[in-house]
Amino acid sequence: MIIVLRKDATDADVEHIVKSVKEWGLSPNVSRGAERTVIGIVGDESVIRAKPLEAFPGVESVMPVLKPYKLAGRDFHPENSTFSVSSGRDGDDPVEIGGNKVVVIAGPCSVESRDLLLEIAATVKESGASMLRGGAFKPRTSPYAFQGLGVEGLRYLAEAREQYGLPIITEIMDVRDVELVAEISDVLQIGARNMQNFNLLKAVGRTSRPVMIKRGLSSTMEELLMSAEYVMSEGNAQVILCERGIRTFEKMTRNTLDVSAVPVLQRESHLPVFVDPSHAVGHWDLVAPTARAAIAAGADGIMVEVHPKPEEALSDGPQALLPQTFADMMKQIRGVAAAIGRTIQE
Amino acid sequence: MIIVLRKDATDADVEHIVKSVKEWGLSPNVSRGAERTVIGIVGDESVIRAKPLEAFPGVESVMPVLKPYKLAGRDFHPENSTFSVSSGRDGDDPVEIGGNKVVVIAGPCSVESRDLLLEIAATVKESGASMLRGGAFKPRTSPYAFQGLGVEGLRYLAEAREQYGLPIITEIMDVRDVELVAEISDVLQIGARNMQNFNLLKAVGRTSRPVMIKRGLSSTMEELLMSAEYVMSEGNAQVILCERGIRTFEKMTRNTLDVSAVPVLQRESHLPVFVDPSHAVGHWDLVAPTARAAIAAGADGIMVEVHPKPEEALSDGPQALLPQTFADMMKQIRGVAAAIGRTIQE
Amino acid sequence: MIIVLRKDATDADVEHIVKSVKEWGLSPNVSRGAERTVIGIVGDESVIRAKPLEAFPGVESVMPVLKPYKLAGRDFHPENSTFSVSSGRDGDDPVEIGGNKVVVIAGPCSVESRDLLLEIAATVKESGASMLRGGAFKPRTSPYAFQGLGVEGLRYLAEAREQYGLPIITEIMDVRDVELVAEISDVLQIGARNMQNFNLLKAVGRTSRPVMIKRGLSSTMEELLMSAEYVMSEGNAQVILCERGIRTFEKMTRNTLDVSAVPVLQRESHLPVFVDPSHAVGHWDLVAPTARAAIAAGADGIMVEVHPKPEEALSDGPQALLPQTFADMMKQIRGVAAAIGRTIQE
Amino acid sequence: MIIVLRKDATDADVEHIVKSVKEWGLSPNVSRGAERTVIGIVGDESVIRAKPLEAFPGVESVMPVLKPYKLAGRDFHPENSTFSVSSGRDGDDPVEIGGNKVVVIAGPCSVESRDLLLEIAATVKESGASMLRGGAFKPRTSPYAFQGLGVEGLRYLAEAREQYGLPIITEIMDVRDVELVAEISDVLQIGARNMQNFNLLKAVGRTSRPVMIKRGLSSTMEELLMSAEYVMSEGNAQVILCERGIRTFEKMTRNTLDVSAVPVLQRESHLPVFVDPSHAVGHWDLVAPTARAAIAAGADGIMVEVHPKPEEALSDGPQALLPQTFADMMKQIRGVAAAIGRTIQE
Repeated sequence: MIIVLRKDATDADVEHIVKSVKEWGLSPNVSRGAERTVIGIVGDESVIRAKPLEAFPGVESVMPVLKPYKLAGRDFHPENSTFSVSSGRDGDDPVEIGGNKVVVIAGPCSVESRDLLLEIAATVKESGASMLRGGAFKPRTSPYAFQGLGVEGLRYLAEAREQYGLPIITEIMDVRDVELVAEISDVLQIGARNMQNFNLLKAVGRTSRPVMIKRGLSSTMEELLMSAEYVMSEGNAQVILCERGIRTFEKMTRNTLDVSAVPVLQRESHLPVFVDPSHAVGHWDLVAPTARAAIAAGADGIMVEVHPKPEEALSDGPQALLPQTFADMMKQIRGVAAAIGRTIQE
Repeated sequence: MIIVLRKDATDADVEHIVKSVKEWGLSPNVSRGAERTVIGIVGDESVIRAKPLEAFPGVESVMPVLKPYKLAGRDFHPENSTFSVSSGRDGDDPVEIGGNKVVVIAGPCSVESRDLLLEIAATVKESGASMLRGGAFKPRTSPYAFQGLGVEGLRYLAEAREQYGLPIITEIMDVRDVELVAEISDVLQIGARNMQNFNLLKAVGRTSRPVMIKRGLSSTMEELLMSAEYVMSEGNAQVILCERGIRTFEKMTRNTLDVSAVPVLQRESHLPVFVDPSHAVGHWDLVAPTARAAIAAGADGIMVEVHPKPEEALSDGPQALLPQTFADMMKQIRGVAAAIGRTIQE
Repeated sequence: MIIVLRKDATDADVEHIVKSVKEWGLSPNVSRGAERTVIGIVGDESVIRAKPLEAFPGVESVMPVLKPYKLAGRDFHPENSTFSVSSGRDGDDPVEIGGNKVVVIAGPCSVESRDLLLEIAATVKESGASMLRGGAFKPRTSPYAFQGLGVEGLRYLAEAREQYGLPIITEIMDVRDVELVAEISDVLQIGARNMQNFNLLKAVGRTSRPVMIKRGLSSTMEELLMSAEYVMSEGNAQVILCERGIRTFEKMTRNTLDVSAVPVLQRESHLPVFVDPSHAVGHWDLVAPTARAAIAAGADGIMVEVHPKPEEALSDGPQALLPQTFADMMKQIRGVAAAIGRTIQE
Repeated sequence: MIIVLRKDATDADVEHIVKSVKEWGLSPNVSRGAERTVIGIVGDESVIRAKPLEAFPGVESVMPVLKPYKLAGRDFHPENSTFSVSSGRDGDDPVEIGGNKVVVIAGPCSVESRDLLLEIAATVKESGASMLRGGAFKPRTSPYAFQGLGVEGLRYLAEAREQYGLPIITEIMDVRDVELVAEISDVLQIGARNMQNFNLLKAVGRTSRPVMIKRGLSSTMEELLMSAEYVMSEGNAQVILCERGIRTFEKMTRNTLDVSAVPVLQRESHLPVFVDPSHAVGHWDLVAPTARAAIAAGADGIMVEVHPKPEEALSDGPQALLPQTFADMMKQIRGVAAAIGRTIQE
């Protein structure tokens, strides 16, 4: 930790800080320049992060030296994390997450009915998706919008998995549902709006299911990594980071896909990094180009929405791909993955 | 609802939309211009808001005409909402929220100990605060930071209320805690990070306690009003809207206080509008100027953090006001309120 | 300057940096912690700011200790700067900028005609404005919009000054116009879109006229201060900083007024700080509340747009105040200024 | 244009608007709903765009139906624009911009010396770049930073072109330099900070050189297209749009690359779309992944910075690629381009 003092800081200010730092069991190192005095602190930064140093008289700014994420960071875990997810059906190969093979998750925004879900599962399986998505509990901006089928939706997801051998992922919105959802779903999704619902993070951290955390609409990558840290600090190391677009002033897209999040998160963390282009751009005709961009940037997986009749979708119809468009996109991304020495998992 | 078609939209596209709109029980009105065909839809917009019109072939954009918030908006409730909160002690006047008198809520960021809370309650009461704040459950970015005293903190808040006659407000983070907190706290606070925790909003909407909703870090005012709508649609009409700074690219302040949110929200909604300058700016020396600005802009209340020893605070020390600074600020805002024909409630 | 090395930085990396720093005539101070090595550099930071330290092998991040603005900052100029502007008419008191008296600049967005300008000058003078604004050269997003009267507009401004004794301010968009505009206008305005038009900044820095620099739509306060530094480094120390709203994701206002910029800029700099609420909010009904907020936060002046027939304005009609609304606002801000011990200059 | 009236708008308000619209030569179409009255206006929207409709009594909001960009938009120019740039040397093929072949522009941030420029030109030519970049006039945030070699830099660029047959692109910052730069440089660059320097846009619009406009740090795509419209409205139709990162709250990258700008701008406009990953991400190790993403998303070209000794670069050293890293990146993007049916121009 580096403490920069104000130009008008007094000797008493310096002594007061030095004394406090020593009381916390750390070693302050005072360096007096012509314009500013700087105090460097060697030792365990986690102790001092909790201290309100900027509230001390004479302090101008405080600059951390170490990363606040230990479990999610690469410093103590230089190798990539990988883990596998299985449909549980005999004969199905497990899906490897975080390895050289890129994982494609596809499915409807919401589970709308049993028949529709099975139809979509069949078609995305056919085109090469390796996991099935579908929302049973839906976070909707308006209380008057479709809120999801709930438990019934979970049952349909399980049935689709059984029939097509696709492991499933679905969102948890409520700490009270964790046990129930974790019993059925192969991967648990934390939505962007719940990225800093810390009690929910702790709760999924106590399950044995892999957790995909979506980056919040205005969250920094450091905050996303700290949310992963919450899950991991409860004992669950199987975390997937998912970039899904951030909020900016631009109005022609729903959000702005931060494609550089892929290499930055991979540099900072050993965890797999996925991208959700559907929510990032918000319109189907932009999904394939941005999905290709995500793969080209090195994403370990993507998640896209598919619906055979977007006009009748109960949520996010405008961003759903038709099955044929999805099939075309799969062909394109196979080529892009090959160009950087990877393959699409099938 | 106005549907703008693409320049290359066909007659079949137009007919398909017209037919669908009629099936939904609404009346489409087609207007063909030289460059674009526009379809206006008269009737209940709530039906059509749920339809994925942008997924229809030939559609360029869709523009809503009506506001999505009915209960929170002014259209059907032109008068300001007011409600009162009482300490429950004999002889104490209730605090009126949303009236001409400006409400000042003060207290520590976190409840740290019984003695400290009572000391702060005494001092803010003395300087003219009319409500006491204090966090028992703390949403912290890091799992390694102080997470609050929990139930013990609630008990201390109740004791401070009993002793000083200040109604209390505290944050709820978890749906499982709603019953417990609503039993003790006079006002329930939904933090910025939970503004779109929709299940939590529904849960507090089923209590009889006033609810203060803080605007999310990157939430629009429309979204804040929709979160109020969630609470109100469950039957609880006592909602306070709170601006607490939004996230921007500026680095010299913790967040950027959107002071224009005060007149905009008051124009759009009948609900009281408060401002939290402490979290907006993040440093104590900026709190008094921005608190004055909030009052000058017409805020119905402010909420600020006070701590006698900011250096030792367990959370947000840098933004805490010393008791004397708080007292000075109170004098300033009395003058500002008077300048616009209001008074500070005491 | 503090250089933080990567965890995997080698001894050779450290030596290479140390050697380079010494060659630049500075003293590196190496501190080896358990997790990171940190190199502190004492001495003139301006030398090292120009060096691409992040390009050196092994470097994780570089943190400056000193402020990059020397002339605009308070470190070497602790007292507030003040300067005066005069109409040049016999008997008129000069307008003091940066002192205890708050300056109100008012006038139309664009100079539209001689008669209209004189009418507006008369009315804002009557209500207590102390300077007149009016655009002769207009920066418009569309090439098809009204671009201003140019030189003719300057002549009308001069005539209005002569008649009503109000010093004038107008925007310069083009380095080729600096001499011409500086001959006539009492204060030169650099618009938000030209805040980093560095050649224009240098050019106005070589005139003897006070310069008001508007903060760019997405500029940080540090960048605004660096633009002031450009003007001052050419010899012109009479600079006014103007907050006029920044761009965010919020759609209900034209921009988001950053009211905390007032106390932050006053803490960082000795230069006067003004606020333009008209451009920040974009709608007339939000101008008075935000103007009051600016004064309450401690602004040294405000600039607002006034038009007797906003429906017919050639630019920015929706944000123009009617003369009567302006007069009402003046009464309100006199009260707010008094509440914080200041007066409105008249 | 659609005008939505307030709920409390009177019949007189409606009549007043209808009368005004008719006076402007347009046909208003009044539609009265249960909650809102809406006035649709058929006819030339450019007339009415200049009118301050939101200043009319009773108006709640105004929604344009047509795009404000006519020359830059696809409505009246459905085919992609292509144009060619030549080195002027005998035997060199011209570089085709906007066709199926992707153009790679490379070179140093600033022209620092004759020898260094020639060395870099040789190496990027060798690796397959088809154009050479290099700044002679540098827009720097600080007045104390290296400001470029000016005219001398232009001469070195011309020499490098002559020697290696690479057409050159360089930035113009000052309207006074347009004639000089246009005489030498094959393509004129408008930097992000000058994207709305409208006089500069008009000036380059009167030359016969292709113009690359970089998107401003907080500019919307609509604004970028309007800046292209400025250039085109002066008669110069050879415009390249360049995405180079926008400013967000994220701190781990210099800016946030908006990769979805590629398909959006290509949908809206017939002009070629380029991407500058170097300025978007700000660090060399993120340039190759984001360059690949840009190509995968369909960019018509990219522009990257290359320097043999980034440690000694006079500007932007941290984001410069070493020649070998650039060569590796070229191999990767050839594969990505092939995967979407394109080739890299060489």
